[in-house]
Amino acid sequence: MSEAKNIPYKIYLEESELPKYWYNVRADMKVKPAPLLHPGTLKPMTAEDLAPVFCEELIKQELDDDTREYPIPQPILDFYKMYRPSPLVRAYCLEKKLQTPAKIYYKFEGNNTSGSHKLNSAIAQAYYAKQQGLKGVTTETGAGQWGTALSMACSYFGLDCKVYMVKVSYEQKPFRREVMRTYGASVVPSPSDTTNVGRAILERFPGTTGSLGCAISEAVEVATSTPGYRYVLGSVLNQVLLHQSVIGLETKIALDKYGIVPDIIIGCAGGGSNLGGLISPFMGQKLRGEADYRIIAVEPASCPSFTRGKFAYDFCDTGKVCPMAKMYTLGSGFIPAPNHAGGLRYHGMSSILSQLYHDGYMEARTVEQTSVFRAAEEFARVEGILPAPESSHAIKVAIDEAMKCKETGEEKTIVFGLTGTGYFDLVAYEKFHNGEMTDYIPTDEDLAKGFAGIPDIGIE
Amino acid sequence: MSEAKNIPYKIYLEESELPKYWYNVRADMKVKPAPLLHPGTLKPMTAEDLAPVFCEELIKQELDDDTREYPIPQPILDFYKMYRPSPLVRAYCLEKKLQTPAKIYYKFEGNNTSGSHKLNSAIAQAYYAKQQGLKGVTTETGAGQWGTALSMACSYFGLDCKVYMVKVSYEQKPFRREVMRTYGASVVPSPSDTTNVGRAILERFPGTTGSLGCAISEAVEVATSTPGYRYVLGSVLNQVLLHQSVIGLETKIALDKYGIVPDIIIGCAGGGSNLGGLISPFMGQKLRGEADYRIIAVEPASCPSFTRGKFAYDFCDTGKVCPMAKMYTLGSGFIPAPNHAGGLRYHGMSSILSQLYHDGYMEARTVEQTSVFRAAEEFARVEGILPAPESSHAIKVAIDEAMKCKETGEEKTIVFGLTGTGYFDLVAYEKFHNGEMTDYIPTDEDLAKGFAGIPDIGIE
Repeated sequence: MSEAKNIPYKIYLEESELPKYWYNVRADMKVKPAPLLHPGTLKPMTAEDLAPVFCEELIKQELDDDTREYPIPQPILDFYKMYRPSPLVRAYCLEKKLQTPAKIYYKFEGNNTSGSHKLNSAIAQAYYAKQQGLKGVTTETGAGQWGTALSMACSYFGLDCKVYMVKVSYEQKPFRREVMRTYGASVVPSPSDTTNVGRAILERFPGTTGSLGCAISEAVEVATSTPGYRYVLGSVLNQVLLHQSVIGLETKIALDKYGIVPDIIIGCAGGGSNLGGLISPFMGQKLRGEADYRIIAVEPASCPSFTRGKFAYDFCDTGKVCPMAKMYTLGSGFIPAPNHAGGLRYHGMSSILSQLYHDGYMEARTVEQTSVFRAAEEFARVEGILPAPESSHAIKVAIDEAMKCKETGEEKTIVFGLTGTGYFDLVAYEKFHNGEMTDYIPTDEDLAKGFAGIPDIGIE
Repeated sequence: MSEAKNIPYKIYLEESELPKYWYNVRADMKVKPAPLLHPGTLKPMTAEDLAPVFCEELIKQELDDDTREYPIPQPILDFYKMYRPSPLVRAYCLEKKLQTPAKIYYKFEGNNTSGSHKLNSAIAQAYYAKQQGLKGVTTETGAGQWGTALSMACSYFGLDCKVYMVKVSYEQKPFRREVMRTYGASVVPSPSDTTNVGRAILERFPGTTGSLGCAISEAVEVATSTPGYRYVLGSVLNQVLLHQSVIGLETKIALDKYGIVPDIIIGCAGGGSNLGGLISPFMGQKLRGEADYRIIAVEPASCPSFTRGKFAYDFCDTGKVCPMAKMYTLGSGFIPAPNHAGGLRYHGMSSILSQLYHDGYMEARTVEQTSVFRAAEEFARVEGILPAPESSHAIKVAIDEAMKCKETGEEKTIVFGLTGTGYFDLVAYEKFHNGEMTDYIPTDEDLAKGFAGIPDIGIE
């Protein structure tokens, strides 16, 4: 498509060009995402229902389907200036390597110590917690990206930060844990004896190495039972996609500055925080009928929520303590096969993205993990960045699309989200280098087990 | 000192503003650094002497005391564009935390996958090797920063890269090793049975975990005995300081753009690659009498080459196979105490910097490692970046100087080099968090043992 001349390798916006507001894509959706339901009453959650768990201002954002733009508070803008703008990079070297006529750009969110885009929402959530006069927040973390981001954010605003880290990660990823400790967080291996939930699980399964579902339950229990604490979450929620819109807004400003119009926008999708953020302003144009883009969500073949999941109300956590959400889901009991190394392991998907996918505004595609790591290595060797496995899902599909352009001779413009770096994922890289990485596609029977856990609540 | 208004958090130069040449500070030195000597004949090394070890073009650069500016070849400029410019960051948050009237800036070189400034010279050395038609290069690496940078550079130009990695690091830092493998390097634990030197050492010391000196000897043996190979090195050499001048040049262009004049420039110093690069254009002005700056080299108290070493001709490696250099040295047998965690463990120092220090153009200061990690953590918490232990030596002294300004009320402008990130140094951070880190200052007797190994060759 159209393109100006002299596109630099990296487009860095000036401080004055940075977005001053977050964009709420729900305002432009004709069919709004279905509301969260109370797991007991099955009625839509109200602000009062949510108040013991989440910060007030964040609840407002969570429930607000109408406000199009949220001004970003100045203290958050100031923090963003420490690591934003993130560069929009023209992948000249990758294009050359592939000998494709396609023009490839990626928005790189890894240049901060949390190593990913998670910091964009962590700092917002910490800010509102501080504003409310809270003492601290609790959360869970699996691999540790979100926990690291939240630790940094809490340290900046002087909030306590308690992270329940899945025990197996706590033990196998000690470095992530140390980064969090550097930022003053208290990191607890989950299950732990600090909560009722944890103690019960330890009693029933003494040798367990934990799960994300259990860690969530512990974090929520501590938040709701400790005065001055609330629980925060790094993906899936509407508020998170709102904060992450900063990724897409910056991308769009940078593209517009050089007169670049993308044909295809690609993002990896676990709970949807990155994808939702990256595509938001483009999706807004699409929803308003102002422009058209192909938007592709990429998920692991071993955890295929969009492509093989059911669109239904389901539990957001294995402990079933959280509100229920309507989303593409594999069932809250679904856990990817043990050989799964590439992140993006959540059983469900953001309600916003689920609705948009259901309504035909975006595509979804699965990729297998060995092909993901192959793409990661190819990318690293020419573009210099060691990508996170999650991000590499998007790389894989960007390369696939660029190779199609090579066949057809089309000069398409491809933009993808490079969400983070892989410095803490080298055990998986090692497996790949040693030829020990395998692929796994769940059978229909595997999926049926997960689907059996989706409750039939009689609400579509 | 003087300062313009509205300094952004981060100054990113435009592509068109990037340096097009490297600056050779030797051209402005009245007293040139002493030449390398042949360890057998004790005569200055000629280009012919060096040809079996180093690439031709790099030898020219090594021996050239006169050419002021070296145009950077276009392919290197193109590679630089992938990760440069590095940001010059105004440490607003650190200033606020310290409540100092000082204005603190840091040049951050960690935003690339090698995690440090080492890539600036690695890509240059790989380029010249490729230009010469070589098949590959060999090198040694301790902690792995240089090995990673070289792997990336060789991958880009399609060169073989063989890295001899000190065995203890190979085993204890498997992640660094995997990054190198991602870039296609072959990484060999040293000592190994692939060389005569390695086999001899293994026979004499079957259980040895290796040393940098041994790894150098193996890398040099392979380079000189394999057709189409040469040896490359990431610090100490004149050519390395030449390439690293890109750090200082960018810093100066960014400062000039905003009318900022530094009072104090601070860099950590191991072999001198970062410090030499950062200060070069400023030192040039000083040598030419055009400006004056306080320049401070920071070294670990446990490896105090500048502050307690001798200025003498010495061996550059423990194996004594390399040319001899005149430098501040602790003796080629000196090894920092086992509790030393913070990098910067080379026994000698760049000849250029040694001469400049000897002639009074710069100061040097030692810091103890627990205070370094304390500064690192303080910095990380407010500035968001997890610094490498090496870089944190400079942070420590920058904070010290800023606190002096607080006492005196002086609004000094401090610039320091933040050479890299600490993602692969979390074992050391963990020790620090657990209160297990100790300090060690070598006694005069300790140093005497190292000094005893400095040869008396009758040449001053």
